[in-house]
Amino acid sequence: MTEHTGESVFDWIDARAEARAEAGLTRRVRPRAASGGALDLAGNDYLGLARDKRVVGAAAAASMRWGAGSTGSRLVTGSTELHTELEYELANFCGAQAALVFSSGYAANLGALTALSGPGTAIVADQHIHASLIDGCKLSRADVVVAGHRDLPQVTRALSTRGERRGLVVTDSVFSVDGDTAPLAELAAVCREHGAGLVVDDAHGLGVVGDGGRGAVHAAGLAKSPDVVTTVTLSKALGAQGGAVLGPGRVIRHLVDTARTFIFDTGLAPGSAAAALASLKALKEEPERPERVREAARRLSERLRERGFRASEPSAAVVSVLAPSPEVAVAWAEACRERGVLVGCFRPPSVPDQVSRLRLTARADLSEADLARAVEVIAEAGASAGAGSRPR
Amino acid sequence: MTEHTGESVFDWIDARAEARAEAGLTRRVRPRAASGGALDLAGNDYLGLARDKRVVGAAAAASMRWGAGSTGSRLVTGSTELHTELEYELANFCGAQAALVFSSGYAANLGALTALSGPGTAIVADQHIHASLIDGCKLSRADVVVAGHRDLPQVTRALSTRGERRGLVVTDSVFSVDGDTAPLAELAAVCREHGAGLVVDDAHGLGVVGDGGRGAVHAAGLAKSPDVVTTVTLSKALGAQGGAVLGPGRVIRHLVDTARTFIFDTGLAPGSAAAALASLKALKEEPERPERVREAARRLSERLRERGFRASEPSAAVVSVLAPSPEVAVAWAEACRERGVLVGCFRPPSVPDQVSRLRLTARADLSEADLARAVEVIAEAGASAGAGSRPR
Repeated sequence: MTEHTGESVFDWIDARAEARAEAGLTRRVRPRAASGGALDLAGNDYLGLARDKRVVGAAAAASMRWGAGSTGSRLVTGSTELHTELEYELANFCGAQAALVFSSGYAANLGALTALSGPGTAIVADQHIHASLIDGCKLSRADVVVAGHRDLPQVTRALSTRGERRGLVVTDSVFSVDGDTAPLAELAAVCREHGAGLVVDDAHGLGVVGDGGRGAVHAAGLAKSPDVVTTVTLSKALGAQGGAVLGPGRVIRHLVDTARTFIFDTGLAPGSAAAALASLKALKEEPERPERVREAARRLSERLRERGFRASEPSAAVVSVLAPSPEVAVAWAEACRERGVLVGCFRPPSVPDQVSRLRLTARADLSEADLARAVEVIAEAGASAGAGSRPR
Repeated sequence: MTEHTGESVFDWIDARAEARAEAGLTRRVRPRAASGGALDLAGNDYLGLARDKRVVGAAAAASMRWGAGSTGSRLVTGSTELHTELEYELANFCGAQAALVFSSGYAANLGALTALSGPGTAIVADQHIHASLIDGCKLSRADVVVAGHRDLPQVTRALSTRGERRGLVVTDSVFSVDGDTAPLAELAAVCREHGAGLVVDDAHGLGVVGDGGRGAVHAAGLAKSPDVVTTVTLSKALGAQGGAVLGPGRVIRHLVDTARTFIFDTGLAPGSAAAALASLKALKEEPERPERVREAARRLSERLRERGFRASEPSAAVVSVLAPSPEVAVAWAEACRERGVLVGCFRPPSVPDQVSRLRLTARADLSEADLARAVEVIAEAGASAGAGSRPR
């Protein structure tokens, strides 16, 4: 009888929820305030541009002029001058031949990987790549080999022993959880030696790494390579929403014709495209911002390590601090919040190694006082949550 | 040597591009104007709300107050009061227990299907479902059976003969290309009889179909069913950007904990959330809008059929008109554009049956004069493109 009322169809969900609760892995959506006293070390607004007057002004003006939504697929009515201008400016800034804007970085990664691989392609992926790249690998139906984290010899071996003619190496430039970096130049050399393409997710590199924030691919001298494709997000350093793929003109044209997350998705809202454009302009006008955020991240990490915490050494804006358990990580983040500092709390399955940690992000506009306060609060909160007793 | 310069890695793309060009399947991004004389029968702004002053005003104000981007995952800093208010209002309006907002309808569909199925689940999918649902099916690694279009006996057979304990039927409510509808009440009954869940993509139903635009799931009396999950988009009738999943509270909580496109994506921009909220409010205040768009679509289709075109009979806002070939479809759409009427042109792989067509969308704010002009232009353009000689 139960079956016939439909009540039991999703009963299996309850058992899963219970198991997660027992493991300390239940998540909660908690709205943040529009503004307030909390010091934000959790968001990805690395350059502090999401609230910049030029950026929000551009978003507001574009909504009024072009409408709140793009009204259709990029191939129907969803492309405005803002989208094509943004594509031109992004490619130009990053030194790539061409660019294509998607409604999110997630969509850009799915689109790039499915359009550039498939059955008959061997994908070799770093084991710490972002979830959206993993999903892109799965969706592509390519033969996927997972290589160890930053393990060049393994990548080389996988490429040289592949059965498929086409090969594609996939990596983040700056890994999202710990903020460490991939050896891009070396990977590109290995790819070239073995006739494979390289796809780099520069989501945490754009605006933060390299000359004026042109990103890690530009910094490695690969922006114009005929065999390298870069994906970026507009929602981190650029403070907006959306994503993009950058690369050779023929790759971009191929995406227009075949990337399902481009063709079958509504185009990015005009306000978001305008905001990203304004942020790019601000970044060009203030090329010191990227170095400021990197310096803030270095100081944050250094001081936490001086206090005995296991903080990662940052190359970009992200610093992670290991926690002994998911429960302690949650309590630690909560204790920080109570003391007015917002930090990210990453637990399985959001961590590559099943080890929970705090994830801190620096911003270009953090003052010395902010940093000092952050370190005090994290140390104090760590002690209260039971994380203080784990020096390196 | 070629291999070692990397030039040849993406050579395979050129052959694909050539084949597409020969088949008349090359696509082109063409930016639309901000405003102008063209009559838009191509976009999905069914209620004419994307440019409504209340809607764009809300988007602009939210960007100024909350920032141009949400700055992080919905689980970190990407949730604002706007997001949770929108979730409450959406669930309330559609009669569902709870809702969860994603950054796109595509992401909502991927999230819902991967979180609600997987190995050990038999998915039974209508063969005309949207690309994002197809990708969700693929990503889920469930056992997928494709049933004929609107073929209830096939769905029944697939459910009753499935080897997996869990079953999930997946369908659009209003199919995106032709605008025809799924037999939701019958599908729900079959699902219930066989202990399966039902996932309905109501992207083209919300705001257009049912009492006051509450959507096709509400109209079928299924909004509160414990075994039915609905996905919607905020970028069509609501004129904004984003998507959402609606359903039982436990399903929504399950998505918060497990849907990768929710957890690992940046939250929807505050401006887009505010725009969708304002549209929902406008829709409640003007419940006659949905009937107006349906009436406009019916009249458009009727008159085109009177002229001898093979136009679909609409239940919502979408009308498709068959074309003899992709080339003719492109020329036809182009001839319409030259005469000041924008229409969609759908060719493989964007059509479920490999038959190219024009895709027309009605809007609530189309006047009698607009409709008359549209029919004249489409007929005239059809004649000039070689499509006029194919009466039913």
